[in-house]
Amino acid sequence: MVEAEAVTPAPRAREGELHAFVVGALERVAVSWADARCVADALVAADLRGVESHGVARLDSFYVKRVENGVIVPQPDYTTLRESPSSIALDAGNGLGHPAARHAMERVIEKARDQGIAFGTVRNSNHFGIAAYYAMLALEHDMIGIALTNSTHLALPTFGRERMLGTNPFAYAIPAGAEPAFVLDFSTTTVTLGKLQVAERKNQPLRPGWAVDSAGRETLEATAAFNGALLPLGGLGVETGGHKGYGLGLLCDILCGVLAGGAFAGDLHVLESGTVAGLTSHWFAAMRIDRIRDVADFKRDLDRELRAMKDSAKAPGHQRIYVAGEIEYEKTLEHRRSGIPLHPKVFAELDAMAERLGIHRLTKV
Amino acid sequence: MVEAEAVTPAPRAREGELHAFVVGALERVAVSWADARCVADALVAADLRGVESHGVARLDSFYVKRVENGVIVPQPDYTTLRESPSSIALDAGNGLGHPAARHAMERVIEKARDQGIAFGTVRNSNHFGIAAYYAMLALEHDMIGIALTNSTHLALPTFGRERMLGTNPFAYAIPAGAEPAFVLDFSTTTVTLGKLQVAERKNQPLRPGWAVDSAGRETLEATAAFNGALLPLGGLGVETGGHKGYGLGLLCDILCGVLAGGAFAGDLHVLESGTVAGLTSHWFAAMRIDRIRDVADFKRDLDRELRAMKDSAKAPGHQRIYVAGEIEYEKTLEHRRSGIPLHPKVFAELDAMAERLGIHRLTKV
Repeated sequence: MVEAEAVTPAPRAREGELHAFVVGALERVAVSWADARCVADALVAADLRGVESHGVARLDSFYVKRVENGVIVPQPDYTTLRESPSSIALDAGNGLGHPAARHAMERVIEKARDQGIAFGTVRNSNHFGIAAYYAMLALEHDMIGIALTNSTHLALPTFGRERMLGTNPFAYAIPAGAEPAFVLDFSTTTVTLGKLQVAERKNQPLRPGWAVDSAGRETLEATAAFNGALLPLGGLGVETGGHKGYGLGLLCDILCGVLAGGAFAGDLHVLESGTVAGLTSHWFAAMRIDRIRDVADFKRDLDRELRAMKDSAKAPGHQRIYVAGEIEYEKTLEHRRSGIPLHPKVFAELDAMAERLGIHRLTKV
Repeated sequence: MVEAEAVTPAPRAREGELHAFVVGALERVAVSWADARCVADALVAADLRGVESHGVARLDSFYVKRVENGVIVPQPDYTTLRESPSSIALDAGNGLGHPAARHAMERVIEKARDQGIAFGTVRNSNHFGIAAYYAMLALEHDMIGIALTNSTHLALPTFGRERMLGTNPFAYAIPAGAEPAFVLDFSTTTVTLGKLQVAERKNQPLRPGWAVDSAGRETLEATAAFNGALLPLGGLGVETGGHKGYGLGLLCDILCGVLAGGAFAGDLHVLESGTVAGLTSHWFAAMRIDRIRDVADFKRDLDRELRAMKDSAKAPGHQRIYVAGEIEYEKTLEHRRSGIPLHPKVFAELDAMAERLGIHRLTKV
């Protein structure tokens, strides 16, 4: 679920043009057309869903420049480390995360089609955008999809003061009937770095449970938090369940980094731009619903479940209860109709990138 | 991770005798010896691990009395609803949850041995004790085990004020090398009912993020909370990630209740004793580590990962960082050596039950 935030009217880009723009930029730095399309699919999906932090805002700094600078390999060789009818372990050759993750999840889905359930890992990969995108690839196959990735260490273990874990997200996608799919995509920290940056920009205090300073003390100041660390979901200590968020973050790092045979814990180096290169690992799974019960019955009951939540009594001051993925689904519809809003700063960065690469600028609508 | 709590010296019971006591009590109410042993294994495992709320403290009220009263069927027929080489869907015939869950998880492990990964569901079951017990069955097979169960609705959806979800725990067990296994078992609410009961008994205020009153307003009073609801992990609203805990709780109810074809959401009725009967569903999975990489390499790296957390810099006022399952592992060793501490009230209840059933009392050591 994405939290609503006051939005200043932003210029918009058309989905199709934005997609072509991403493909064009990546092709300029020697990424193949097929791989560039994978990246574009995932980035545009994030922007459509309103997850601006994981969309084209990062195209230049996270992907294009890293390929230009030789940090990410534009045309990597994938190596299959181990494979069985229900599993696959891949090495992504330090290529872009999106095509590697898409390839792995598609193989997992294919295997799950035959075997009922399958899982896979990718190591030596890079930032792959939103985890939900890969989990959601299972939906059209009437499967439940799961996608995890580890990431740069930004978060504390409970009772610690040193960054040891990433924001390490989990994503689950489950197809419903008349209702939009249940899509839960959450970081295992209370908030991600983006929330701190917003607070800093707006000169607002942080909330308790978000972050600590470099001494490991809870702080409400963004500047102190940037030198400190993010708190796990549940906050500081154990009183409000911080050990649960820490446990989930560590679980993610084990299933991704340790199982895949990649980097983990403190070994996920931070680049100047704030994320890792060539050290990221992912974990995927897919399972057929019809191995347990009829898909139509399942979807009918999932609709009932989701509506039961939404129709239940509201807390004081609230008119609406959401289910995971609902806000993003509605934003997708709206952005498909009216264009994808991009922050003027993002447009400016993309314009500068277009000039550098010698490609056409994006049109503002 | 279990939170430390000041413990008044309690009388103790020996593991073996406690186990035999549970078996004897259940046999008296017509539960088979094999099934009674499953219940005893799971309850004693909870007490060994220090999870007193899920151990023999509940033997009489949750299990023996419900069988006596005809709420739970002592010798149920299990029905296999659907089965494949990598999956199984069971109906537990409203029997005790522990043997049904053990049976299902053992079938899942057997299937995962052949297929690499497998999953299964159980519906029409009952309270099964600690989820970790079932996930941990995978450990000796060098597999990763996962166990989920839904439970009586006690918790709110974010922005709601009506109880719609249980404390819906997730458990993951992952074998390490020299280190104890990573065992993460957490409810998707900030705290469970037990914490509120302790606060009430000690006449202490609750913490923010724990519970709301019947109007859906956050409360620090246990009495008001009993008429209200538990908050999801992350607390009230979305500022501190409450929507993530809510999303996880709903995910659990979907994977268990909806997928298994059992009850879900508001349909999990509450009995006078505070839990459900015959309406509980579980979800299990197991996967082979060696389908992804060599088990020895994996365990060596998991040891490194766990030690990295524990060896990282400590927050002010803390001397130690834990990893999930560590406290419970140490308690198990201590309780095996010195006996399992049981609250005098629990001993008294078990004595009364023994008298009622005509079996020998437990010896206090």
